[in-house]
Amino acid sequence: MLDGKCIFCRIIKGEIPSSKVYEDDKMYVFKDIEPKAKVHLLAVPKTHFKLLEEMGETEADILKYMLLKIPSIAKANGCENGYRLLINQGDDAGQTVYHLHIHILGGEKLSDF
Amino acid sequence: MLDGKCIFCRIIKGEIPSSKVYEDDKMYVFKDIEPKAKVHLLAVPKTHFKLLEEMGETEADILKYMLLKIPSIAKANGCENGYRLLINQGDDAGQTVYHLHIHILGGEKLSDF
Repeated sequence: MLDGKCIFCRIIKGEIPSSKVYEDDKMYVFKDIEPKAKVHLLAVPKTHFKLLEEMGETEADILKYMLLKIPSIAKANGCENGYRLLINQGDDAGQTVYHLHIHILGGEKLSDF
Repeated sequence: MLDGKCIFCRIIKGEIPSSKVYEDDKMYVFKDIEPKAKVHLLAVPKTHFKLLEEMGETEADILKYMLLKIPSIAKANGCENGYRLLINQGDDAGQTVYHLHIHILGGEKLSDF
């Protein structure tokens, strides 16, 4: 289920343009418009939920699916020597969009975190 | 399956001391000895594998389980206002221990990444 007011849901639906690098029936991956590394992708589930703590089995299965897919997507998009995954949850982490998303950072030697 | 030469496997087995905050049959969570935030925990699966790309269904199911558990573990350990999860994969990300692990960072307003 998508949410008409959520920016990531609208990107998934094509209402807001994005630089898509991968899509299937469960997930959508596109380039971050404010990249924090040479490669900076955002992987989002094609169902709207805000936080890990809201996940039931269905959402957790989608997340599992995404984590199985991400290594090949990362490699195919310039992360041959590794990458960093990052999930921000809530205010202290600076989560900006409340649709769960995984940052994929790479394409260069990343700084310590 | 644990690996006798892996530092995280040895921590899980109790051969190397750690500040444990949570443990069950599938996962082990302890405080990072070089914390990068007020709260810095490491969540590791109780089976040895190095990278997401090595995961089969069994390993992915453990990772799914961990991601369902982490929100409550984070909250119980000082991350009431959110937290950041981080998974380093390979050289570009500066992965230091080749046993898959999830950094849990929080307990304060985190800097941009």
